[in-house]
Order: sequence, then structure tokens, then C-alpha cells
Amino acid sequence: MNNDDSLMQAGLAVRRAMFGRAGAEDRLAAATDLNRDFEEYVTRYCFGATWTRPHLDAKTRSLLTLAVLTALSKPNQLKVHVRGALANGATMEEIREVILHTVPYAGIPAGVEAFNAAAEVLNEDSK
Amino acid sequence: MNNDDSLMQAGLAVRRAMFGRAGAEDRLAAATDLNRDFEEYVTRYCFGATWTRPHLDAKTRSLLTLAVLTALSKPNQLKVHVRGALANGATMEEIREVILHTVPYAGIPAGVEAFNAAAEVLNEDSK
Amino acid sequence: MNNDDSLMQAGLAVRRAMFGRAGAEDRLAAATDLNRDFEEYVTRYCFGATWTRPHLDAKTRSLLTLAVLTALSKPNQLKVHVRGALANGATMEEIREVILHTVPYAGIPAGVEAFNAAAEVLNEDSK
Amino acid sequence: MNNDDSLMQAGLAVRRAMFGRAGAEDRLAAATDLNRDFEEYVTRYCFGATWTRPHLDAKTRSLLTLAVLTALSKPNQLKVHVRGALANGATMEEIREVILHTVPYAGIPAGVEAFNAAAEVLNEDSK
Amino acid sequence: MNNDDSLMQAGLAVRRAMFGRAGAEDRLAAATDLNRDFEEYVTRYCFGATWTRPHLDAKTRSLLTLAVLTALSKPNQLKVHVRGALANGATMEEIREVILHTVPYAGIPAGVEAFNAAAEVLNEDSK
Amino acid sequence: MNNDDSLMQAGLAVRRAMFGRAGAEDRLAAATDLNRDFEEYVTRYCFGATWTRPHLDAKTRSLLTLAVLTALSKPNQLKVHVRGALANGATMEEIREVILHTVPYAGIPAGVEAFNAAAEVLNEDSK
Repeated sequence: MNNDDSLMQAGLAVRRAMFGRAGAEDRLAAATDLNRDFEEYVTRYCFGATWTRPHLDAKTRSLLTLAVLTALSKPNQLKVHVRGALANGATMEEIREVILHTVPYAGIPAGVEAFNAAAEVLNEDSK
Repeated sequence: MNNDDSLMQAGLAVRRAMFGRAGAEDRLAAATDLNRDFEEYVTRYCFGATWTRPHLDAKTRSLLTLAVLTALSKPNQLKVHVRGALANGATMEEIREVILHTVPYAGIPAGVEAFNAAAEVLNEDSK
Repeated sequence: MNNDDSLMQAGLAVRRAMFGRAGAEDRLAAATDLNRDFEEYVTRYCFGATWTRPHLDAKTRSLLTLAVLTALSKPNQLKVHVRGALANGATMEEIREVILHTVPYAGIPAGVEAFNAAAEVLNEDSK
Repeated sequence: MNNDDSLMQAGLAVRRAMFGRAGAEDRLAAATDLNRDFEEYVTRYCFGATWTRPHLDAKTRSLLTLAVLTALSKPNQLKVHVRGALANGATMEEIREVILHTVPYAGIPAGVEAFNAAAEVLNEDSK
Repeated sequence: MNNDDSLMQAGLAVRRAMFGRAGAEDRLAAATDLNRDFEEYVTRYCFGATWTRPHLDAKTRSLLTLAVLTALSKPNQLKVHVRGALANGATMEEIREVILHTVPYAGIPAGVEAFNAAAEVLNEDSK
Repeated sequence: MNNDDSLMQAGLAVRRAMFGRAGAEDRLAAATDLNRDFEEYVTRYCFGATWTRPHLDAKTRSLLTLAVLTALSKPNQLKVHVRGALANGATMEEIREVILHTVPYAGIPAGVEAFNAAAEVLNEDSK
């Protein structure tokens, strides 16, 4: 793994801030021949090249990501990004509103999946 | 048409603020037997019951809507909401960043459609 | 919770007829700060404002819903609505035909998910 | 072209009843090396093997098809099947209700596309 | 079950070569009144009429299928076809590259689901 | 624009080989403040970092791309990549087979859009 390039370092920093070391360095260290290049692609080009761009702060990017994952019906990824949104300063109320706002556009079944996924993370946190 | 209920009035006010009377009262007045109830559904339950909720301001809701319409590949609706986002105070740079942020999640073809649609509106405005 | 408005009452009646009290009042009573407004949105605007409309009977609406949930690949929601379709008078043969009819349009993988989901409900019922 | 097998004949009969000869024999006669086998696939396995099955009548199958095409955001195909639904005895009111019923599940942008497409066919017919 | 027609026999042969008897005859023998006609539809028109066509060999068809199932976010079906791709001579490296190639077009969340599904099959095989 | 980095150069070379200078340098030169960073993202991370990977040749990658764009219902992008596939050595027969192979998985409406789009390019070429 070549992780000393600048996009990789920038991407790892974003992942670490949102998901801790377990969702950053540890993920890359645990990667296999099957998914290593994918993990690096995600780290460099999504977290490193996109999340670090100007004009939108990290919390807004988290809310946008939740809306997109709701619209795309990706509940497992949504759970990951609910944690990231909390780390970026979003409140439970804001997370709820993002999903509610997405429902008229993406449909109720997408909303059911999103609220079930978000509940798993948020209920766990409130224990 | 029964448009004196409170959700209808709230929805019309949101539509008017974003799209002018042409995208609010005039749309409902021009509705036919085919699409009148749909226009009312959209006005009451999307603009009236959802856009007026607390915790997210109108500009943030516009940016979320652009992300969702990009992810769902709905370029015609995206054009409408680029205008709405501008009316709600979003800049060209913020609109661009929302689409760029959505691309790694929703894919490049969705991004091509979104940027082409946004360009039609934004280039027209800059003439 | 404000559930004495007419759309809420109409929506609860539709949910109760299809899913029993467990899928109607009990769901709303169990709602949390996270999903209460979503449950109310679904009850009022989907079950209350849409399912109660004229020109299509409840069984036809159930069959349409099964087709849409198959096309959207929402197997968990499909299971709920297979029960609802049975309550609305649909037979196993009609449910099967709706999914089979949807397959050429939505694709075989959507069909696999739908038949697996439907089998869970229908096999359970035939025990 | 081998069109004397029974599925092909059954499929052509269904297409002819819904779309006239222009949407049946003429489509196959006009097919090219690029799309001939696709036209035959559609005729045999969709119209011939699926639309002719028991337990759901042709009008119900038309309504299901409109719901699925709305959910999948396929407005061009929807226009074709609005004509087919009319030929199978569906009324404008039933077509409208199918799209309205689909909207809470598939989202408003899918509904906008569907109503615009349906209006092109239905307005043309009412001239 | 009528399985002595030529498309059924051709489809069964393709399924057997990719998935063994457990994924061919045994699947049809275990089918119920609910899913028998669906299993036959898949066998005849997908495996029998499509996979046997000329111009693309079986390995290429497997790789295309993996790309499509990644794009459609169907991880359960993807697992089945990872086994089929291996049986058709694809290597782990080729399977990985197909998913990686699909990611920029279909998005990272679709890639996460696909790599997780592929890992279940490939790790099991390497034990 | 910073286009002297290696991924940019690699991506431009891939684009030029498939689409000529009009689809490579000229596209970047014509980019605006709205879409420049998107064009660079596509060039670097899709064409530069992905299309240049080992284990699959350029023609196979073109065929996979056509399958994915068919499954995602992106006919405008499909037209671009039909030209690219021809440049990478694919024949009309192979392009047709890729779309036909995708149809049972992604559905007939996706196939209709793909064949219509492919016909525009291939008929133009045969004039």
C-alpha cells in the first residue's frame, strides 16, 4: 500500500475525524487483496478529494450524504454516516429532518429503511 | 379546488418564495383533471408539511433536494430546484459542490446529467 | 401526537383493516422522537390521503403496491404488503401473478427478492 | 425472423390488441440487425409468455404496468402503455389514480415525469 | 412441470455448468406453487434464450452479469454469480476489476455492497 | 487547471483513444467554473485511475461500461460509450449482445432506452 501521497493522507484524516481510527487506518490495514484498492479509491477520491473541498462545511456534507444514502436505499452505509454526522456536529433532530425531507422525493419505502437504520445507531448511542 | 386549508396555504407560500407566482398559484390554476390532485398533493405534503419543518433552514433544504435529485437522476426537476436554491440564497459554488459531493456516491452518469441540467439554468442566468 | 384530525383517522382505519391494530395504533404508540413524525406522515398522506381515494378498490391498490415494491426492490416492505393484500382479498395466485408480471419490466434480480420475501409470508400462513 | 412459433403469435396478438398493427407486426417488420432479437424477446417472453397468463385480466395488467413504469421512471414507455391501458378499457380516472397511488412509494419526481408523459397522450386523445 | 422443451433444456445445462445440480435441476424440483413458474421463466428466457447466444463467451457474460448486479445493488444475486463466474473461468483478479470498474459509474455504496458480497464467497473458497 | 499530474495525463490518453481530441483535451478546455472540477474528477479517477488498471483489456471495459449504463438507464452516456466501444474494437454484434444480456437483469424498459440510444450512433456510422 502506498499511503504517503497527499490525497491518501487527507482522506485518512477525514475518515479518522468521522469514524475514529477503527474506520480509517484500521480499515486499510485489514484490507485484503480483494478490497484493498477499493478502500484506497474511497479514501483518496471520495474522502480525500471530495470531502476536503471548500464552500460546504463537514456537517453540511454529512447531511447531504445522509440524504443521498436515503435516496439510494443504502441502509448499511447510512448507519456508518449517521455516526459520521454525529461526529461532525449534527444533532438527532437534524438527522431526522434530513430523512423526512428526502421521503417525499425518494419515497416512503426508502424512508422506512433509513429510519430503521438510523434508529439502530441512535438508540445504541442513547443507552 | 379547496386551497384554503392551512397546509395548502403554507405550501403555496414556500413555492411562491422559491419559484414565484408562476411556480405556485399559476401552476395550480393551470392544472387539469389529470394532474390537479397531484399538484395539490405536492403543494400540501411536500412544500406545506415538509419544507416548513424546523431544524433545517430553507437553503439547507434546497441543497439536500439538489443532492437527492442528482442521486435519483431527475434532471428536469433539478433545473426547477436550482432556481429554487438560488432564491433561497445558495451560490453557484455551493450548488456545484453539492453535485460534486454526490458524484462519488451516486456515480458519474448521474453527475453528467446534473451538471448539464444545472448549466442550462446557471448559464441562462449569467447572460 | 395529534391524531384526531380526519386524515390521521382515515389512515389509521386503512392500516387497521390491512395490518390489524399491531400495524396501526400500536405502531404509532411505539413511535419515538426519531420516527414519530414519519409514522404520522405515512399514516396521513399515504394511507389517509391516497389509499382512500376513489376509482380503484383496496385489492387493486394492494396489487399495485406489490408491483411497485417489487420494482423498487424493497423486500421488507413487500412482506408487510403481502399480508395487507391477503387482508384486502387477494389470493396467492394473484400475488404471484403481480410479481411475475413485474419481472420482465424490473428484472429478474428484483423478482428473486420479491419471491423470497413473499414466500416467507405465504409459507408461514400455510403452516 | 422466425415468427410462427406459438409464443410469438400469442405475443403479437397481445401487442396488436393494445397498440394496433403499428405496434405489433409493423414494429417487427421494421426491426434491424441491431434490435430484431430484442423485439422478438419482448414479443415472446413479455407479451407472449407473461401478459397471456391467467388470474389477472388485461386491464389490471395494464394498470400494474403503468405503476411499474412510473416507479422505474420510464416516461417514454409509459406513454406507450397509457395507450395500451386505454385499449384495455382503463379510464383516464383509473390511469390518474394509478400514478397518484405510486407517488408516495416512488417519490414526487417520478410522479412529475409520469403525469407529464400521461398528459401528452391523454391531451392528444381529447383533441 | 414441462421441462422437455429445448429452451428449458438449454437453460438447465447453463445453470448446471455454473452452479452444479444444486443450482439447476434441484432448484426446479424444490420449487413451489408460488415460485415454480418464475424459476422456469428464469431458466428458459434468461439462461436458455440469452446466455446461449453467440458473440460473447460464457466468462464475458459472467463478468457483464457481475457488473450489472453491482450497478443494480443486488448483493445476494451477486454472490450466486461470483460462483458462476469462477466456474466460467474468471479469476479473483478479474472479478475484483469488474467491481472496481463499475464503482465510478454506479457509486461507492454499490461497491461496498458488492465487495462485501464477493468477499463472502471468495473467502469461503480460500479456506 | 492543473493537468500535468500523471493521473490527468493517463486519463486524457484514455479519453483521446476512445473519443478523439474532441472528447478529451477539447472537453477540458471548454469547461466552465461550474463543471471544470467535475471534468477533472472524471478524467483523473475514472479514466486515469480505473480504465488503466490491469487484468481487463480496454474492449472488455467498454462492454462492461455499456452493460452498466444500460442497467442504470443512462442513454446519453451510453451513446458516448458506444462510440468508445467501437474505438476499442467492439463490433456491432458484441454491443447488441451486451444490451441483450443485460435486459433480463435490468428489465425491458432499460433495454428499449439502450437500443434506441445505440441505434442513433450505429445508424449514423453506417450512413
